[in-house]
Amino acid sequence: MSKRIAVYPGSFDPITNGHMDIVERGLEIFDEIVIAVARNSEKKSLFTIEERLHLIAEAHCNDPRVKVDTFDGLLVDYVVNQGARVILRGLRAVSDFEYEFQIAQMNHKLRREVETLFLMTSVPYGYLSSSIVKEVACLNGPVETLVPPIVRAALAEKCRKMKEE
Amino acid sequence: MSKRIAVYPGSFDPITNGHMDIVERGLEIFDEIVIAVARNSEKKSLFTIEERLHLIAEAHCNDPRVKVDTFDGLLVDYVVNQGARVILRGLRAVSDFEYEFQIAQMNHKLRREVETLFLMTSVPYGYLSSSIVKEVACLNGPVETLVPPIVRAALAEKCRKMKEE
Amino acid sequence: MSKRIAVYPGSFDPITNGHMDIVERGLEIFDEIVIAVARNSEKKSLFTIEERLHLIAEAHCNDPRVKVDTFDGLLVDYVVNQGARVILRGLRAVSDFEYEFQIAQMNHKLRREVETLFLMTSVPYGYLSSSIVKEVACLNGPVETLVPPIVRAALAEKCRKMKEE
Amino acid sequence: MSKRIAVYPGSFDPITNGHMDIVERGLEIFDEIVIAVARNSEKKSLFTIEERLHLIAEAHCNDPRVKVDTFDGLLVDYVVNQGARVILRGLRAVSDFEYEFQIAQMNHKLRREVETLFLMTSVPYGYLSSSIVKEVACLNGPVETLVPPIVRAALAEKCRKMKEE
Amino acid sequence: MSKRIAVYPGSFDPITNGHMDIVERGLEIFDEIVIAVARNSEKKSLFTIEERLHLIAEAHCNDPRVKVDTFDGLLVDYVVNQGARVILRGLRAVSDFEYEFQIAQMNHKLRREVETLFLMTSVPYGYLSSSIVKEVACLNGPVETLVPPIVRAALAEKCRKMKEE
Amino acid sequence: MSKRIAVYPGSFDPITNGHMDIVERGLEIFDEIVIAVARNSEKKSLFTIEERLHLIAEAHCNDPRVKVDTFDGLLVDYVVNQGARVILRGLRAVSDFEYEFQIAQMNHKLRREVETLFLMTSVPYGYLSSSIVKEVACLNGPVETLVPPIVRAALAEKCRKMKEE
Repeated sequence: MSKRIAVYPGSFDPITNGHMDIVERGLEIFDEIVIAVARNSEKKSLFTIEERLHLIAEAHCNDPRVKVDTFDGLLVDYVVNQGARVILRGLRAVSDFEYEFQIAQMNHKLRREVETLFLMTSVPYGYLSSSIVKEVACLNGPVETLVPPIVRAALAEKCRKMKEE
Repeated sequence: MSKRIAVYPGSFDPITNGHMDIVERGLEIFDEIVIAVARNSEKKSLFTIEERLHLIAEAHCNDPRVKVDTFDGLLVDYVVNQGARVILRGLRAVSDFEYEFQIAQMNHKLRREVETLFLMTSVPYGYLSSSIVKEVACLNGPVETLVPPIVRAALAEKCRKMKEE
Repeated sequence: MSKRIAVYPGSFDPITNGHMDIVERGLEIFDEIVIAVARNSEKKSLFTIEERLHLIAEAHCNDPRVKVDTFDGLLVDYVVNQGARVILRGLRAVSDFEYEFQIAQMNHKLRREVETLFLMTSVPYGYLSSSIVKEVACLNGPVETLVPPIVRAALAEKCRKMKEE
Repeated sequence: MSKRIAVYPGSFDPITNGHMDIVERGLEIFDEIVIAVARNSEKKSLFTIEERLHLIAEAHCNDPRVKVDTFDGLLVDYVVNQGARVILRGLRAVSDFEYEFQIAQMNHKLRREVETLFLMTSVPYGYLSSSIVKEVACLNGPVETLVPPIVRAALAEKCRKMKEE
Repeated sequence: MSKRIAVYPGSFDPITNGHMDIVERGLEIFDEIVIAVARNSEKKSLFTIEERLHLIAEAHCNDPRVKVDTFDGLLVDYVVNQGARVILRGLRAVSDFEYEFQIAQMNHKLRREVETLFLMTSVPYGYLSSSIVKEVACLNGPVETLVPPIVRAALAEKCRKMKEE
Repeated sequence: MSKRIAVYPGSFDPITNGHMDIVERGLEIFDEIVIAVARNSEKKSLFTIEERLHLIAEAHCNDPRVKVDTFDGLLVDYVVNQGARVILRGLRAVSDFEYEFQIAQMNHKLRREVETLFLMTSVPYGYLSSSIVKEVACLNGPVETLVPPIVRAALAEKCRKMKEE
């Protein structure tokens, strides 16, 4: 049997404990997970692509089963080029669901052979998102239980700089 | 690497093309899928457990990668006893989502090592359910695009008998 | 141009001011509305079919543009037999939406030429349903702003009888 | 200033840690909470009204700020008769929301002076309900983190008896 | 009987097969449909108003029952000025529903005599939106089953120009 | 017993009758309500913070039980500094619910002792929001039943100036 690879796409601006939980649980099912940061998102980001890749890599302590990469173009093409057939996504709440449903159906239409698999976000991370983490961090709120330590440091640094400007 | 098994639980009263689609797509990801009919559901059923097992088996033409079974007791215990760690479920709409979310979180609490993976129902089956199929069939509506041929025949027979009583 | 007819199906157990509002607004768009009480619903009802038909007819004061009827079999067949092509439905909330979506898609599949049109329930009736009206009435709560006067009387009578049993 | 009383109504069949959490947090805001078990619910129950009252009382260790009672008739009338003006409810998920919205609007219509206040269920209890607890317990699943100890014992006893019948 | 006109408002940036489906089905119910492009939307658009009007007109092959127009000011005023009383809208999913509900209630408040009628989007277009079409097209994904041929050509041209800049 | 204070946070750009309704009903439960305008919202506003404070104060006719204030930093810190433990919020619809749920859970995590209490928006204001009011006002639509008189005047003035620019 060949190696089972899942691609976990997103903007990861920055990676949170909710993302980490999905990766960790995904590794129980797949042999390798490629965390793929979207280059062409229109969303304004706090961290650059390079910063985000660095934070993701550090947070996973160079676990050989986790690869970190970026992609542009259609996600389904990227997935096939990675030798994968599975997109992994976390589902939090109803608003997630609608959006994820639309994207998954479109991706399935673009390439029948690529499937999107969903894991429900674990209970303690159900309310967590990169945006709310950034908001709390920039108001000097505590984020140590929400993100990996390296992300906490990076958030503090980034918010400090933004205030100086 | 060992064989990857997913358990696809439900009441399958009767199996529809929507279920068939989930199984078929699941087989692209897993080596074996166990369709597990719940014995202890409180829902009143149209078909007996044995009839349901028979219809499922026939509909899958004895594909060796598909096993058909029943279970009682906790689903997560059954999954572990089957040597599996994955529960497979299809997601249709918001009402599904809420219910599935609750069950998945409870199952994860009962056994950390068992994960529930969700596939979005394919577009043409998004409105399909066993209940609506039964309703249409018993009003003599056409169900040939909604269920496998053997289920259509069984529905016709069952509805005919119900009217005679 | 021929007469435009819409069929407004339901269980109407009993008709409420929310239903009346949909009919009234529907009459601004259609020349005739057929209020069609489903005979083969599995829901346990408080009023018999005949009582429900009587209450609907009285509540509309014999407006010649409103017909009251019952149907069994597939709704779409009934609609076509009435010379209509439109099913009219009121939409209240998200839970309504999911259910209505499923039924509308199935009906469209059964007969392409029959369309389901939805009106959003007017603001003051957004929380109203036959079930909540029955519950309030049987606890002797005031229902005069929720249902037509004749329905109020019928509810009082019915609840009185139920308590005597 | 007079004592602030909130009524917390429900069927509590049986009381769970999710209910306990709402009561505990409610006591930070109100001086007294009346847990009011509905007598006239149509739902089939596992425990009798008396058993439920006993379990609620025991679970709260006779905290003088918590009263346990039953009611029939309209909830809003009961609330006013208790000298209260506030109904307290926990909100879990979207399906809850729709139902709670309908009931709250009806209650506000029945009595303007009675308000319904909602607390979001705490994160760890977001998936918890009396029904899922009963289901798990009767399949011999572990419920010790879901309900107070006395309820666990009562569930075990009840499920044992049901199997003997 | 006078001609029945429905106004179908939107930004149509660009028109998709989902919009075409609503218009086509609307023409089974109304004698004329006015596709009305909103001038004062705050959304940043890919196509200019004039380009959008052109694409809509071409896509409908100058069907005499379909008019194409723009409007600014209140939609309900525009509707009345067109001699119409009906706003036609397609409904896709829950998030649509909430937004459409809010707008429909406000419009009904602004002018009682104008009704909003909703059609559920046909099953194959349930996941389709102008934004997702633009995203796929600009990543060179295939859109021929999502939009009319003339729109496909226009999208290709537009995306080519954006990349040159 | 000490004075019960609730903080009602928001952007209030501008205050609507929906907000007024929540404050009024909140005053039946709390001794004092602090309307707290968020300084650090990223949303582009129509009115300046000072204009918004002025409109809120005027709309409440200097009711001594209503205080008007601004805050920056974490809301939960502000609440505690005000000697309060309750955040008051209105809930309109499902989309509200998801967002409010996320914020409430995060706030509860940041400070256990601060609770968020929700009131369902009264029926006539269920579709009302500051954004839809601004949109209607700037299209010269009637807003007198949607906002206090002083807000109506301010909206007219503001929209007139925007058009002159």
